[in-house]
Amino acid sequence: MPTINPDRLLADLRALRRFGAHDNGVVRLALSPIDMEARHWLVGRMTEAGLDAGIDGVGSVFGRSRKAGPALVIGSHTDTQPTGGWLDGAMGVIYGLEIARALAESSDTRELAIDVASWIDEEGTFAGYLGSRSFIDEPVDDAIAQARNREGQTLMDALRVGGIAGRPRARLEPGRHVAYLEPHIEQGGRLEAEGKKIGVVTTIVGIREMRVTFLGQRNHAGTTPMAIRRDAGAALIAFAHRLDSAFRALARPETVWTIGRIDLDPGFLSIVPGRAEMLLQFRDAEAGLLARMEAKLAELVEDADKAGPVRVAMEPADAPVEPTVMNADLQAHIAAAAEAEAPGRWIRMPSGAGHDAQVIAARLPCGMLFVPSIGGVSHDFAEDTGAEDIVLGCRVAAAAAASILRSFSKRPA
Amino acid sequence: MPTINPDRLLADLRALRRFGAHDNGVVRLALSPIDMEARHWLVGRMTEAGLDAGIDGVGSVFGRSRKAGPALVIGSHTDTQPTGGWLDGAMGVIYGLEIARALAESSDTRELAIDVASWIDEEGTFAGYLGSRSFIDEPVDDAIAQARNREGQTLMDALRVGGIAGRPRARLEPGRHVAYLEPHIEQGGRLEAEGKKIGVVTTIVGIREMRVTFLGQRNHAGTTPMAIRRDAGAALIAFAHRLDSAFRALARPETVWTIGRIDLDPGFLSIVPGRAEMLLQFRDAEAGLLARMEAKLAELVEDADKAGPVRVAMEPADAPVEPTVMNADLQAHIAAAAEAEAPGRWIRMPSGAGHDAQVIAARLPCGMLFVPSIGGVSHDFAEDTGAEDIVLGCRVAAAAAASILRSFSKRPA
Repeated sequence: MPTINPDRLLADLRALRRFGAHDNGVVRLALSPIDMEARHWLVGRMTEAGLDAGIDGVGSVFGRSRKAGPALVIGSHTDTQPTGGWLDGAMGVIYGLEIARALAESSDTRELAIDVASWIDEEGTFAGYLGSRSFIDEPVDDAIAQARNREGQTLMDALRVGGIAGRPRARLEPGRHVAYLEPHIEQGGRLEAEGKKIGVVTTIVGIREMRVTFLGQRNHAGTTPMAIRRDAGAALIAFAHRLDSAFRALARPETVWTIGRIDLDPGFLSIVPGRAEMLLQFRDAEAGLLARMEAKLAELVEDADKAGPVRVAMEPADAPVEPTVMNADLQAHIAAAAEAEAPGRWIRMPSGAGHDAQVIAARLPCGMLFVPSIGGVSHDFAEDTGAEDIVLGCRVAAAAAASILRSFSKRPA
Repeated sequence: MPTINPDRLLADLRALRRFGAHDNGVVRLALSPIDMEARHWLVGRMTEAGLDAGIDGVGSVFGRSRKAGPALVIGSHTDTQPTGGWLDGAMGVIYGLEIARALAESSDTRELAIDVASWIDEEGTFAGYLGSRSFIDEPVDDAIAQARNREGQTLMDALRVGGIAGRPRARLEPGRHVAYLEPHIEQGGRLEAEGKKIGVVTTIVGIREMRVTFLGQRNHAGTTPMAIRRDAGAALIAFAHRLDSAFRALARPETVWTIGRIDLDPGFLSIVPGRAEMLLQFRDAEAGLLARMEAKLAELVEDADKAGPVRVAMEPADAPVEPTVMNADLQAHIAAAAEAEAPGRWIRMPSGAGHDAQVIAARLPCGMLFVPSIGGVSHDFAEDTGAEDIVLGCRVAAAAAASILRSFSKRPA
């Protein structure tokens, strides 16, 4: 059995944290100078671990094992949110590095091939999931040509400045690459609340994002009687209240919905809003439930529009994301490893957040495992996970990785 | 009886409209270069009408009659909203000018003294109601020293640039000034809806402006279960819904309330809002009802804060404005004139908007009359009133002015 080295694992995580450290967290936006520094550091660590490593033409760091296949890819991302936590993404990448080292150091696992990846821009500074999309040969050239960050810098410029424009891109190798494993922090509070240490991910939830607009009549807030108003803001509030009741009636305990933004136009105390807009997101692991929620939303929009006096309409705010089921065999390997390392202290659970695994699942069997997030906090400098939980998660991931690769080795070619 | 000249009245209104004309409306912010041009034009017109006219040290145009008192001040404002209508304020000032001329031209009214005023900055570009506040000797020097417009220009600078800094300010003359009459467009749709031509204002409504804040916990919109969320935006929506029901139960038909602005922080689709804020305004002519509404609001805030899981608090967004009752004698003079000029086609009504009369009422008996606003539109380029209604309103105001001044002349000194 492989034995991971807790001190080496934690030391590498802490070393990576220094690139962009801010309070307890990290600011390391994809392809920023400090992110490029972190990528060069990671290439060095992978090389020391015996991998053929480099930064590819979109910015992903890929460390290829020199062992014959079948190969398991382990990875996640090392870019962060604008106010990022230190483990979000980074932990899965350093797990991959440590597992590659640990398997190479153990006589019974040293022939197993682990490739390690840090996919560029999972967080969408320029174009979300760019690295994993490029890896599975999605057509990304248009996105690359058009993408800009919030400051207006083009992705093309960032690649040039980073010195990696025109480099070849890491590609999935059919036949050699047999599965993808992505360990990650939970980013929610369920494991902690239930006293569990490992989450075996069943599904990455699907997402719908909608813009609902209300068109009334701007008017003087002192001289326009309530009876003749067409107040777009009041219509939005009444609608949001009905929507919440309707979604509550449809939802499962895991279903989530959020109104993240509301704008009233013109936004002055003395003016009845003539236009209002809300951005709504809802997520669930079940495609059928997402469809029922979307249908209910459309029905409420139509009802409100017909009832008047304010016109109501909706449109997608972004393309729908369908739920992605994690591979059942991989779930079983992770569950078995979890039961061995933390008996009774693991659960199966969906992922409420998006991950590169949902992209790669189009081409490879994928599995994910979660470790607890303290207080359920993520996308915040305060995000953290206990050192013992980090180490335990890596042990489970290492055991699962070995078990997955052995299962593929046994199969007839 | 005085006879107003409809062509002269409408020609002056249309001439004034050319200063800052924009579509059907006007952009003439207080003390802007185009507003100063309009003030100089107005001084010229007043001088031609035989008044001692000038721009005072805060920007008000004041035309003092050369007749012995008692004097009636007629006026309003010629500054506009950022997207102003052409008659809002301007009509009352030009009525004053025309009435001064008409009374001087009629043998039986030529000894009556009409002073005409265009009070600076009713619309609050720098400091709302500055001209009328200065006229009644409110202490305004601190406000003048501190006021800035949205572009950051100081009021002191605007006065310097306009060439009027340091000039004496028009002041109420106790003994001579006996009353203030402010004709104005209705700015609402009630006269039109009821087929009436003149509104005799009973009260200018009081106003409360409140900021209600909701403090929850910012979190990931995908990984945070509904059951443990502290969603400030969801709390705001539930609160606004309860508030609307509660106010509906308390309100009279004339009561109005408006949520003019809502902000969710940070305002992203994927983040549960950690902080939310709404700006609420409510108005009524009855001080007791305003107090009951404010008490109900405070009760709902306390209940919501206690119920959790989001903290709720409120604070005034601006100083309260108490309702201002118009002088009963002046109302009677206006009503008698309205009945003579438009039998059965006038009503008594409150003013839902604020006016300089509510300031001046602290020192002088005040009266207001309204003419219809087409479609109830105001604070918009589309604001308008039919020419016949404008002329009729001026006839009523002129008859009322003569009648008011005669009533004061008859009184023992």
